[in-house]
Amino acid sequence: MLATMLYGPRDIRFEERPEPKLGKPTDAIIRLSATCICGSDLWPYRGIGNFAEPPTPMGHEYCGIVEEVGKEVRKIKPGQFVVGSFAASDNTCVICHDGYQSSCLQREFLTTAQAPLMSVPMADGTLVATRDLPPKELIPSLLTTSDVLGTGWFAADAANVKPGTTAVVVGDGAVGLLGVLSAKQMGAQRIIAMSRHESRQKLAREFGATDIVTERGDEGVARVKELTKGIGADSVLECVGTQESMMQAIRSTRPGGFVSYVGVPHGVELNGAGLFFAHVHLHGGPAPVRRYLPELIDLVLKEKINPGKVFDLTLPLDQVAEGYRAMDERRAIKTLLRTDGTL
Amino acid sequence: MLATMLYGPRDIRFEERPEPKLGKPTDAIIRLSATCICGSDLWPYRGIGNFAEPPTPMGHEYCGIVEEVGKEVRKIKPGQFVVGSFAASDNTCVICHDGYQSSCLQREFLTTAQAPLMSVPMADGTLVATRDLPPKELIPSLLTTSDVLGTGWFAADAANVKPGTTAVVVGDGAVGLLGVLSAKQMGAQRIIAMSRHESRQKLAREFGATDIVTERGDEGVARVKELTKGIGADSVLECVGTQESMMQAIRSTRPGGFVSYVGVPHGVELNGAGLFFAHVHLHGGPAPVRRYLPELIDLVLKEKINPGKVFDLTLPLDQVAEGYRAMDERRAIKTLLRTDGTL
Repeated sequence: MLATMLYGPRDIRFEERPEPKLGKPTDAIIRLSATCICGSDLWPYRGIGNFAEPPTPMGHEYCGIVEEVGKEVRKIKPGQFVVGSFAASDNTCVICHDGYQSSCLQREFLTTAQAPLMSVPMADGTLVATRDLPPKELIPSLLTTSDVLGTGWFAADAANVKPGTTAVVVGDGAVGLLGVLSAKQMGAQRIIAMSRHESRQKLAREFGATDIVTERGDEGVARVKELTKGIGADSVLECVGTQESMMQAIRSTRPGGFVSYVGVPHGVELNGAGLFFAHVHLHGGPAPVRRYLPELIDLVLKEKINPGKVFDLTLPLDQVAEGYRAMDERRAIKTLLRTDGTL
Repeated sequence: MLATMLYGPRDIRFEERPEPKLGKPTDAIIRLSATCICGSDLWPYRGIGNFAEPPTPMGHEYCGIVEEVGKEVRKIKPGQFVVGSFAASDNTCVICHDGYQSSCLQREFLTTAQAPLMSVPMADGTLVATRDLPPKELIPSLLTTSDVLGTGWFAADAANVKPGTTAVVVGDGAVGLLGVLSAKQMGAQRIIAMSRHESRQKLAREFGATDIVTERGDEGVARVKELTKGIGADSVLECVGTQESMMQAIRSTRPGGFVSYVGVPHGVELNGAGLFFAHVHLHGGPAPVRRYLPELIDLVLKEKINPGKVFDLTLPLDQVAEGYRAMDERRAIKTLLRTDGTL
């Protein structure tokens, strides 16, 4: 089959790779209905951070039809439509039991999803099947539950968004925009999106943002304070992962408030004393998407949310390199990749 | 009157100072029943961190009898026995309302308590009066509610200690020991105290510690993991404020678990990516003691707890310099200073 490999900075190739085969008896092979490019894929694409010896297979957001399952797979059946988290998990260990499946004792990060077929470990733990095959038009939204929506949802949850509270979202990428959608679903009364890009502001408002702040740094913090009676927001979702965005988030939060951070921090160092006097709650990490999958899939199937709107570019999978370029140059918020599957 | 001043590293002087007078109409003057030396007083005593131009008045833990109140003080009356937090607060602003009085919009940190008399701002907000004058023998325990117990209590609360959970306490100073007591009160099933000092281990066990870990660093983390099925503790209370203790705390916590930190961090820098993959909740800051005062005073008056046991050295106030030396040299856990008041 043809699949996506990263050879080095900005060097994406779609090339012949062996088809995945069942390895462990708990694996499943799925034929992807659609896949996409994650904001976090841009870090290695831009040559930032450590990653494995190239070439590296790419992609960790997926949904599709089960082709084949290993002989110890009990719940997942061939022919089912499934979504799974970017982090495979057994969903039975004590960490999974507490809802932190992305730190499962057997966790494996998946990295081969920008391809027509992929192997998913611990299929019974990792995958969630729908009762029926979903209608084609819901595939993009279902695909978002695999990571980008699940991550935005975790951002809102970890920032303690509750009915009636004020939330700030730092970052207008796809995760930030779906953080807005999530905060809205959780009942936030006021949602302040920090964004400088008109098309993203528009989508933020569509997802539920009540205010847009275009300023950054000290001015951005001052603007948030103005909007929150001088004290800062109850909940702040940090959806970027840089020093600037993290400080923006912490400084925009009221004492006793909650800051979440869901993008892998790059070059971020937090000063202990500064954090101490900020008096905030801080929680983040790889989103435990598996915890939220049943609820999020249900919201999509009932058409209560339409997170698939973050895809503003759709390309056939063989044009994956252009998909990366468009996101790198901020021409696209997020690129959906069509496969030969059901979409 | 004679009061305590810090002139520079290890230079404590007990010298003539003007008696406090009512300044604002919301002030109260109290005659201290007892005062004491805080672990945090040792930072400036050792010349670490920034502090004001010397000489600096010292002391922020207090209880005593109200001598005089300003004309706008409504609830607090002369003759009452009162305890207050080290941070004065109006107890009416939106931050106080949410229980973060130590970040009150009008907060003032108090610094003149190692003296026979002190002035307390925003008396109605800051002070809590007992119904009757308490028995003399309870004064040491009541004094602890002003900071050291309130801070240990916040450590346990911020680390989400609940009935049946496992808590680790990093630090065997007075705050750490009262963190053990607090975790016990909140129903922790297992309380692991990290301590190398026999007398402190003994007191930790008396307060409710079920296990003692003497190792530090990698070995300390490994030992905690051994005691917690390999995954780390649900709740970890960081009661020191150094880089080593903070990392010890974070690394001893299970994914999804809670780390609190209640001592002003000195030289602590947290790596964002490390914190991200640790997957912990982090919360700390100056303890909102005022939130807990009514409950803690009640527990002391009903003799359900005896936090005054952390005082293993009692001196008359005029020997305050020796009190600092004894704590600096770790000859004493915490020094109680007798005044001419009721103790």
